[in-house]
Amino acid sequence: MKYCSECGKAVEHKIPEGDDRLRHICTRCNIIHYHNPRVIVGCLISQGEQVLLCRRAIEPRKNYWTIPAGFLENGETMLHGALRESQEEACAEVDNESLYRLFDIPYINQVYVFYRGELRGNHYGIGPESLEVKLFDEKDIPWSELAFPVVTDLLTEYFQDRKSGNFPVRVEQPGPLWAEHTGWSNKPR
Amino acid sequence: MKYCSECGKAVEHKIPEGDDRLRHICTRCNIIHYHNPRVIVGCLISQGEQVLLCRRAIEPRKNYWTIPAGFLENGETMLHGALRESQEEACAEVDNESLYRLFDIPYINQVYVFYRGELRGNHYGIGPESLEVKLFDEKDIPWSELAFPVVTDLLTEYFQDRKSGNFPVRVEQPGPLWAEHTGWSNKPR
Repeated sequence: MKYCSECGKAVEHKIPEGDDRLRHICTRCNIIHYHNPRVIVGCLISQGEQVLLCRRAIEPRKNYWTIPAGFLENGETMLHGALRESQEEACAEVDNESLYRLFDIPYINQVYVFYRGELRGNHYGIGPESLEVKLFDEKDIPWSELAFPVVTDLLTEYFQDRKSGNFPVRVEQPGPLWAEHTGWSNKPR
Repeated sequence: MKYCSECGKAVEHKIPEGDDRLRHICTRCNIIHYHNPRVIVGCLISQGEQVLLCRRAIEPRKNYWTIPAGFLENGETMLHGALRESQEEACAEVDNESLYRLFDIPYINQVYVFYRGELRGNHYGIGPESLEVKLFDEKDIPWSELAFPVVTDLLTEYFQDRKSGNFPVRVEQPGPLWAEHTGWSNKPR
């Protein structure tokens, strides 16, 4: 941020009185502009033993596989956002949805909130942000071609949870499983 | 938003190509400025049968009671944010913390993520944003003087859950319990 979004004058980067961290403050109207983490919502959609994945048509991580997910929009609940993304990216409707997994990624200022649910009917398709949408058995998951660490962790834990039939809601930071599958390393800054 | 925060030129409000909702777009540099819901994190702190509440020293809802909570900051996990707020508002350290309750408030573009935990030692105090910080038994909770619907719902469900000793993680929209306690009505727009 270089300019005040309210009056167009330059902002400066300083700690407001009574605060303890740097904020962007307008040099004319004195408005403090706060910047906060964004929420990404998504849905792990299953049909029987299979899960629905999308191959991304857009950057970042074009050509890699993910679950339907995207930024939570103003005016919608997290579930509505997850269902909207399922519809947009995989043309899929979801039944029996429930909250499943939260991830913190503090070094990119993101919070992930994933639901799980069942594919309604056998209907799905290729949304404009996908190149391919496909149901996978566990043994066929393209582990080395998953788009993001959170997807790797989510799927790994989902298949573990499925053995017990118990799907506890948890919050975590992604990483170790992703690194194991891809050799990739990116520790929190 | 009236001006581009990157170049200072006026923005216009229109639907970008390939999108389906109005965004602020710069008339000079064409940057699309997205606005997304904010995350509020907090912690329901117990000691034995009692819970720790803070009477707010600041608006909104000055003088009303709440749990330690505030906006998630860039660079921190949700738990870190909840613990930071506990320290800032109630000078309290927390043990055995766990994820507890999520709330959607889509009509004000907010997501709440609450943890629960136990007060470390018997140490707490009055942070700069609090007028008073106090441990309450269930029968003494000031139900008609709680600051926000999410606090009413959270506390009500917490005391219900405590009877069974089972504290499932759930996501909800607040409202009905708050209306019951206060007579207040504000349906999602």
